[in-house]
Amino acid sequence: MFTPGPLTTSYSVKEAMLHDAGSWHYEFNAKVNWVRRKILEVAGLSSEAGWETILLQGSGTFGVEAVFATCVPPNGKVAVLANGAYGERIVLMLQHLNIPHLVLRTAEHRPNDPGALDQTLANDPTVTHVAIVHCETTTGLLNPITEAGRVVKLHGRTYLVDAMSSFGAIPINFAEAGIDFLVSSANKCIEGVPGFSFVICRRAALLACEGYARSLSLNLLDQFKGFEKNGQFRYTPPTHAILAFEQALNELEQEGGVEGRGARYRQNHQMLVEGMKRLGFRPYLDPAVQSYIICSFYYPDTERFDFNVFYRHLSDEGFLIYPGKISQAKTFRIGSIGRIFPSDIAALLSAIGTALKKMGINLI
Amino acid sequence: MFTPGPLTTSYSVKEAMLHDAGSWHYEFNAKVNWVRRKILEVAGLSSEAGWETILLQGSGTFGVEAVFATCVPPNGKVAVLANGAYGERIVLMLQHLNIPHLVLRTAEHRPNDPGALDQTLANDPTVTHVAIVHCETTTGLLNPITEAGRVVKLHGRTYLVDAMSSFGAIPINFAEAGIDFLVSSANKCIEGVPGFSFVICRRAALLACEGYARSLSLNLLDQFKGFEKNGQFRYTPPTHAILAFEQALNELEQEGGVEGRGARYRQNHQMLVEGMKRLGFRPYLDPAVQSYIICSFYYPDTERFDFNVFYRHLSDEGFLIYPGKISQAKTFRIGSIGRIFPSDIAALLSAIGTALKKMGINLI
Repeated sequence: MFTPGPLTTSYSVKEAMLHDAGSWHYEFNAKVNWVRRKILEVAGLSSEAGWETILLQGSGTFGVEAVFATCVPPNGKVAVLANGAYGERIVLMLQHLNIPHLVLRTAEHRPNDPGALDQTLANDPTVTHVAIVHCETTTGLLNPITEAGRVVKLHGRTYLVDAMSSFGAIPINFAEAGIDFLVSSANKCIEGVPGFSFVICRRAALLACEGYARSLSLNLLDQFKGFEKNGQFRYTPPTHAILAFEQALNELEQEGGVEGRGARYRQNHQMLVEGMKRLGFRPYLDPAVQSYIICSFYYPDTERFDFNVFYRHLSDEGFLIYPGKISQAKTFRIGSIGRIFPSDIAALLSAIGTALKKMGINLI
Repeated sequence: MFTPGPLTTSYSVKEAMLHDAGSWHYEFNAKVNWVRRKILEVAGLSSEAGWETILLQGSGTFGVEAVFATCVPPNGKVAVLANGAYGERIVLMLQHLNIPHLVLRTAEHRPNDPGALDQTLANDPTVTHVAIVHCETTTGLLNPITEAGRVVKLHGRTYLVDAMSSFGAIPINFAEAGIDFLVSSANKCIEGVPGFSFVICRRAALLACEGYARSLSLNLLDQFKGFEKNGQFRYTPPTHAILAFEQALNELEQEGGVEGRGARYRQNHQMLVEGMKRLGFRPYLDPAVQSYIICSFYYPDTERFDFNVFYRHLSDEGFLIYPGKISQAKTFRIGSIGRIFPSDIAALLSAIGTALKKMGINLI
């Protein structure tokens, strides 16, 4: 799979699921605790320095919504930096939660604008929180979370980062960026299986949110208190996904942590872009803002290209790619993350070449 | 494991997870669709007759909260029948969601009272919804969902049933009980792995909830529309848990459906209760209200009994039981559900006998 998740995981990660764990059992709770600490270690943080990890059942979206549902006070207001579907999803969450907000949009091929944020925060003292998406999986664009974070901290606001598809493979300096809450998911760059998300946060920032929660299931503070009380999830955890994640964290370490994993993904991405260009495809983004996580390519400029037919040719050979999600341009996406290696990219490129031939398309 | 979930699953169910499925891929969507229809079949319902199944990421609690968050109108009010922790959890949800509600409590060893509900609904026309827990996993008590449902329908209100630990092993007549929404989870009597819950509902009742949703992640109507639009979950599904569930549904059918599975659980339960009595333990509930899902036993009346020591003796031998959850009495719980057979109950009883001996306790 060449997708932004659910993605390809190693066989050993999946094998870890061949066991039923008791969610009340001390052995399982010890694993949960280890996972929570290990995530902080991957982030370059520690519990001793005032940081916590909270695991939450559900997909990454549940984790992001949990931060807003739990942490924005009744008189709070959120400024959302948006340039893709995931920024817009945050807006949709805030609408559902009935939380006041404003949106600072840039075009889908343009990074968020810290200058505009600076002006907004200077003009609107009612904004309490700022939310940003690190890698916009819509396009593959990498937003300037550190520059934006400096602006947020200059104005003394709370900073939330959706790092769903970047955490674990792109280094993030929490202190420099002034991050208070960061959300990612089991099934992205850590290469676990889907089933839960995790929120990394400053303990003091979380503890300050007493009484705000707008949902029981998504109450991040109560979830934290549950872990602290007896090491347990409040409600049935996805036990098998946790066991898989434990193994995935070990494999991340074996690969050299964030740096090692990032190096492989970067290699995958470079090989992909070069190969696709050779085949005649054009990437959507300027290389200056392109992440090595996922890459959008324009549809070829020929009537013979039908994405569904193209997709089917590839999936018949065992290669799954992703449809586009961009509103202004016809594109499809290919991910560089998950348990895939340059040899897999080479095989994909060869299959794409064959698919084009079958469709009678020659772009060169 | 002799627990109410996460519970023991078959090896073949776990093996189904040794595959990474693409959540956008048509093969996976076909499986999701099959699972949704098959759940209706287990319930004795069909899409043609106006019923739907919606799968939702997260634990069972997420599914229950999603029903309230999506389906209660802004001017709605919920009457909750409560006699245990899961009824109280519904109350807690409604508090978080800021939904007006009233609670009709009975003691933890007493079933819900349809007569009291009748009076309440007659006196309070502002109550729009009634919520009940079928099998109160707190004790193992089975509530009279059909009798209560007749009252709800007599007064023309909407009826929500939390059938978390009963669906799939205790027959439920949706028409007779007048059920509008019923919630259960992958990791209970269907014997899948944890990772999602499912809501069975009348399509018309769900479609009537447009615009009420108080959460994006828990928006059941949008989740339904997503399935209808392209067969997909709106947000990353727990793909491995779905593959496991497909296998679990097949194994349920092989066992003779709800009836066959119920028969095995009943046998497990009877053997358990008889064996425990022989060892000198006393069940908490009157047999008339006791389900064959899970059973609470009083702590033995001796200072030598320490639950943690008892638990450890059993877990050292590979047997996991459950702590009690009853507020008024000291109990522990043993489940009869999951991939366990009378031979496993026999082995557990033998281990319990040995544990008592090791603790120097003789109850006979």
